[in-house]
Amino acid sequence: MDKILRINMGPGAPAFKTESRDKYAGLGGRGLTSAIVAGEVPPLCHPLSADNKLVFAPGLLSGTLAAMSGRLSVGCKSPLTGGIKEANSGGMPSQVMARLGYAGIVLEGKPDDDTLYKIFINKDGVTVTPDNSLKGLGNYDLVEKMKQEFGDAICCMSIGQAGEMKLASASVACTDMELRPTRHAGRGGVGAVMGAKGVKVIVMDDTGTEMRPPKDPEKFKAANKIFVKGLKEHAVTGQGLPAYGTNVLTNVVNEAGGYPTNNFLYGRFKGAAAISGETMAELETARGGKATHGCHRGCVIRCSGTYMDKDGHYLTKQPEYETVWAHGGNCGIDDMDAIAQMDRLDDDFGIDTIEMGATIGVAMEAGLAAFGDADAAIQLVKEVGKGTPLGRILGSGAAVTGKVFGVERVPVVKNQAMPAYDPRAVQGIGVTYATSTMGADHTAGYAVATNLLGVGGNVDPLKPEGQIELSRNLQIATAAIDSTGMCLFIAFAVLDQPETFAAMVDMINAFYGLNLDGDGVAALGKKILTMEREFNEQAGFTSKDDRLPAYFQTEALPPHNVRFGVTDQELDTVYNF
Amino acid sequence: MDKILRINMGPGAPAFKTESRDKYAGLGGRGLTSAIVAGEVPPLCHPLSADNKLVFAPGLLSGTLAAMSGRLSVGCKSPLTGGIKEANSGGMPSQVMARLGYAGIVLEGKPDDDTLYKIFINKDGVTVTPDNSLKGLGNYDLVEKMKQEFGDAICCMSIGQAGEMKLASASVACTDMELRPTRHAGRGGVGAVMGAKGVKVIVMDDTGTEMRPPKDPEKFKAANKIFVKGLKEHAVTGQGLPAYGTNVLTNVVNEAGGYPTNNFLYGRFKGAAAISGETMAELETARGGKATHGCHRGCVIRCSGTYMDKDGHYLTKQPEYETVWAHGGNCGIDDMDAIAQMDRLDDDFGIDTIEMGATIGVAMEAGLAAFGDADAAIQLVKEVGKGTPLGRILGSGAAVTGKVFGVERVPVVKNQAMPAYDPRAVQGIGVTYATSTMGADHTAGYAVATNLLGVGGNVDPLKPEGQIELSRNLQIATAAIDSTGMCLFIAFAVLDQPETFAAMVDMINAFYGLNLDGDGVAALGKKILTMEREFNEQAGFTSKDDRLPAYFQTEALPPHNVRFGVTDQELDTVYNF
Repeated sequence: MDKILRINMGPGAPAFKTESRDKYAGLGGRGLTSAIVAGEVPPLCHPLSADNKLVFAPGLLSGTLAAMSGRLSVGCKSPLTGGIKEANSGGMPSQVMARLGYAGIVLEGKPDDDTLYKIFINKDGVTVTPDNSLKGLGNYDLVEKMKQEFGDAICCMSIGQAGEMKLASASVACTDMELRPTRHAGRGGVGAVMGAKGVKVIVMDDTGTEMRPPKDPEKFKAANKIFVKGLKEHAVTGQGLPAYGTNVLTNVVNEAGGYPTNNFLYGRFKGAAAISGETMAELETARGGKATHGCHRGCVIRCSGTYMDKDGHYLTKQPEYETVWAHGGNCGIDDMDAIAQMDRLDDDFGIDTIEMGATIGVAMEAGLAAFGDADAAIQLVKEVGKGTPLGRILGSGAAVTGKVFGVERVPVVKNQAMPAYDPRAVQGIGVTYATSTMGADHTAGYAVATNLLGVGGNVDPLKPEGQIELSRNLQIATAAIDSTGMCLFIAFAVLDQPETFAAMVDMINAFYGLNLDGDGVAALGKKILTMEREFNEQAGFTSKDDRLPAYFQTEALPPHNVRFGVTDQELDTVYNF
Repeated sequence: MDKILRINMGPGAPAFKTESRDKYAGLGGRGLTSAIVAGEVPPLCHPLSADNKLVFAPGLLSGTLAAMSGRLSVGCKSPLTGGIKEANSGGMPSQVMARLGYAGIVLEGKPDDDTLYKIFINKDGVTVTPDNSLKGLGNYDLVEKMKQEFGDAICCMSIGQAGEMKLASASVACTDMELRPTRHAGRGGVGAVMGAKGVKVIVMDDTGTEMRPPKDPEKFKAANKIFVKGLKEHAVTGQGLPAYGTNVLTNVVNEAGGYPTNNFLYGRFKGAAAISGETMAELETARGGKATHGCHRGCVIRCSGTYMDKDGHYLTKQPEYETVWAHGGNCGIDDMDAIAQMDRLDDDFGIDTIEMGATIGVAMEAGLAAFGDADAAIQLVKEVGKGTPLGRILGSGAAVTGKVFGVERVPVVKNQAMPAYDPRAVQGIGVTYATSTMGADHTAGYAVATNLLGVGGNVDPLKPEGQIELSRNLQIATAAIDSTGMCLFIAFAVLDQPETFAAMVDMINAFYGLNLDGDGVAALGKKILTMEREFNEQAGFTSKDDRLPAYFQTEALPPHNVRFGVTDQELDTVYNF
């Protein structure tokens, strides 16, 4: 994994070259994508211009035996936020790309016409082919077509209709182990940048390649064993996530009064039980789906599943908690099948489910549909796929939708929609939303763990005290973990169990022949955050962009009737490290 | 004119109070609106929230005998730019408001339902009345209705459908001397803020009031006489503008190669002659309209006119140069009647013609219509009035339209569309576009005068040299002039003729009993710009917002094949004063 593949998409015939990764040595995943974007993309360029770059990077441990190492980072200047972006995805591409020897694939330039290209990469090399027959395909049909052309030993990174339309909520779809486009680098419009580059799909086949070999195989194997044992032993990663998936959170967050309901008007949703992880797992099993399933080779948590329709046919993968919330409680909808349908549509069109659900919440506030009207919500999602003017508005995200329809209550930071935790009742995540380099993003520093789940200690979710330090430390740790290719869910075990954390660090050391310690991990995280923040500053961001919308400080959230209490002055200290 | 009227629009019954203007003594027009917005509006508030304020202010000399003193300033935090905004309008309201004794009218708060109100003000006081029968009316029908209700001695400040929809390009319409809603505080979405306040129209009647008396009537009268003489003697204000209106510029700017054509792709338009001021004046006269006409009491330049349709019936006022360009050359359209129709629609719906035309240019680049297709362009404007999803996109301005349709070439600064001068071929105006506190705005520092018209000296339009100083001085002078209520067109004579400038200052001194000199005028301008800039900084603006879109530096503009050459470092020195 010592090469970087650069593909120049135009104009003229696309050209590619591989180069050594020396310039970016020691960086993987988000570390690599952010370093390339910060180092090579003009911060004031238009996100859809030839000057932007789209970087795909497996993590430092991807393509190895290490459990949970299959996360992919996708980076660029974001069409949604205007700042730097790393969107993270599961599925197979990370493992495959790493085994093919690529530390990163960089799409550069853009065609001067609207020709659409497919890229095929295997051990023998790279081909870039114009193929306008792919135009307008959803991700499911597209992958089916690729399977017919390239066989079923492939994986795909692709865009649906939303990416072709260059909509700011467009995702990059990654195929899972069943070769379905169900895993998405969802946030920030990375799919729009892929669309602007004229690339519909990157197909990869790692047939004939080997697992990446560690420098110290014995030590590596031993550390991995301890690591896996730790994951199995922790209640969240060993029991909750496997049994109920991420949607195990619905009841927890709702009970805590932090479940954003009806476009962040209430903190508790009456219909929560009907769409909880527990209900969903039962339904999945009853219909012949799977309630426990992994999204990539090497996953041992297996938080996913398969969701069948009423007739027992595959509809979509098990919808994530964030999706169930976005299309569910946030829109007052408690119909699990309707939510699953929207999840399928989002995956097919290639849309970020969080942004889409938050946008429908704003549209409902604008009066386009009533809260709770599942049929109307499904129709709104379909508009995006059709590319009608209304669909283009919605596909441009919550901030644009709020502007176009004159809505004041729009839950975004840096133009990116907030995920499934109200920052007033989970104030630690509010700090992360406000200050993350990514815009409102729960994964950037998941303070929910310590605010609500008792993981990594306890910090009262309703009070501002302690939230800054909590979010800061989590943002640093997360930036580092996002560089390893490790699934973020390892954090539950890593935060609570020192030996599991040590095993993770040991794996890196054994693999690369390093002597990293905890401080070294933190230093890596700080380095990445600093790069990202500097890019954003050069793109025009200031402390004023590190704020929640004003109404989170003035409107009290039931049932706790709490306002966001962390002051602006405190928010400005998050990056004091 | 010593009172400020504050009307709190809710919730509950609207309440109003008048207070002394002491706190804002010495400020008028833009000086007053910007001082109130900067001093009272939280910079990070949502522009459509109760926290924003909409301020109407006549100038220091409005309501007096002074010629050209009928300009109105309308200020708020802009829904379009997110920064401070002063939009400036002709028509009757400024004179009438000043004679009624109001230095400013401030709309505060917002209703908690969608009731629409009308406000009536005369010498006896103020009434605020809910009137939902006004909903959905265009400005023309609305004014007709107000005339029936209040008689024809009134003037109106109102919003059309666009303002009711809170669209970011919505204007506030001001009636002219014929009680037609043809004068607009166009830029930055001030009409959307009026809509958010639930106010459809402010009707004023100054019957029974007197002209405001100067402290030194003789000196005042004498100065006014010299001032008027100067205006009559200058070629631009005495001949060009009266004869051909602002549209006298079409041939001039086109000849100079700075006429933005087909969404700023070319600098010269083949169809320019067909839509020039010369052609238009001929057409107007031939059809029984007027080619020379004033928009407010006291105007001696009379740059306006009336435009009849083919059957000789009134269609609209003489379209301004910026409008003719926006709906004309910028969209490749050379059909004067089509342009006049769009002008009428814009006035009726209450939309900024510059933003609307620039938006259609972007929509054409996106492929929604062909450049040059006048019928399609008219249909697009009509969509805004109907409030269809497409209309709402377009009514949200060029930046949002570019985002929604994935267009890279979007000619905006601070999200506000550029007016009718390409900044590559008229580099001084490029400096103003980039650095003005208002977003791209030609009136904020009209360097075109010195770049192309030889007024105030000569600075080569194609080169960066001298443009910073030119724009700086003009921005300072303009901020001061915008405080007097004087029409900006006096600047042509004031810049060229020292005695005309002196007469203007003498009028202020004679009226208020002051001893202001040129330095004092400049100090006022600097004070206003500083307030505005500080507001913008608090709202999150940085030097990165003082930039043209990147393509103006990389794409050469025919026929001169010139790029914008003023460096970022130079742009950052504009406010060094």
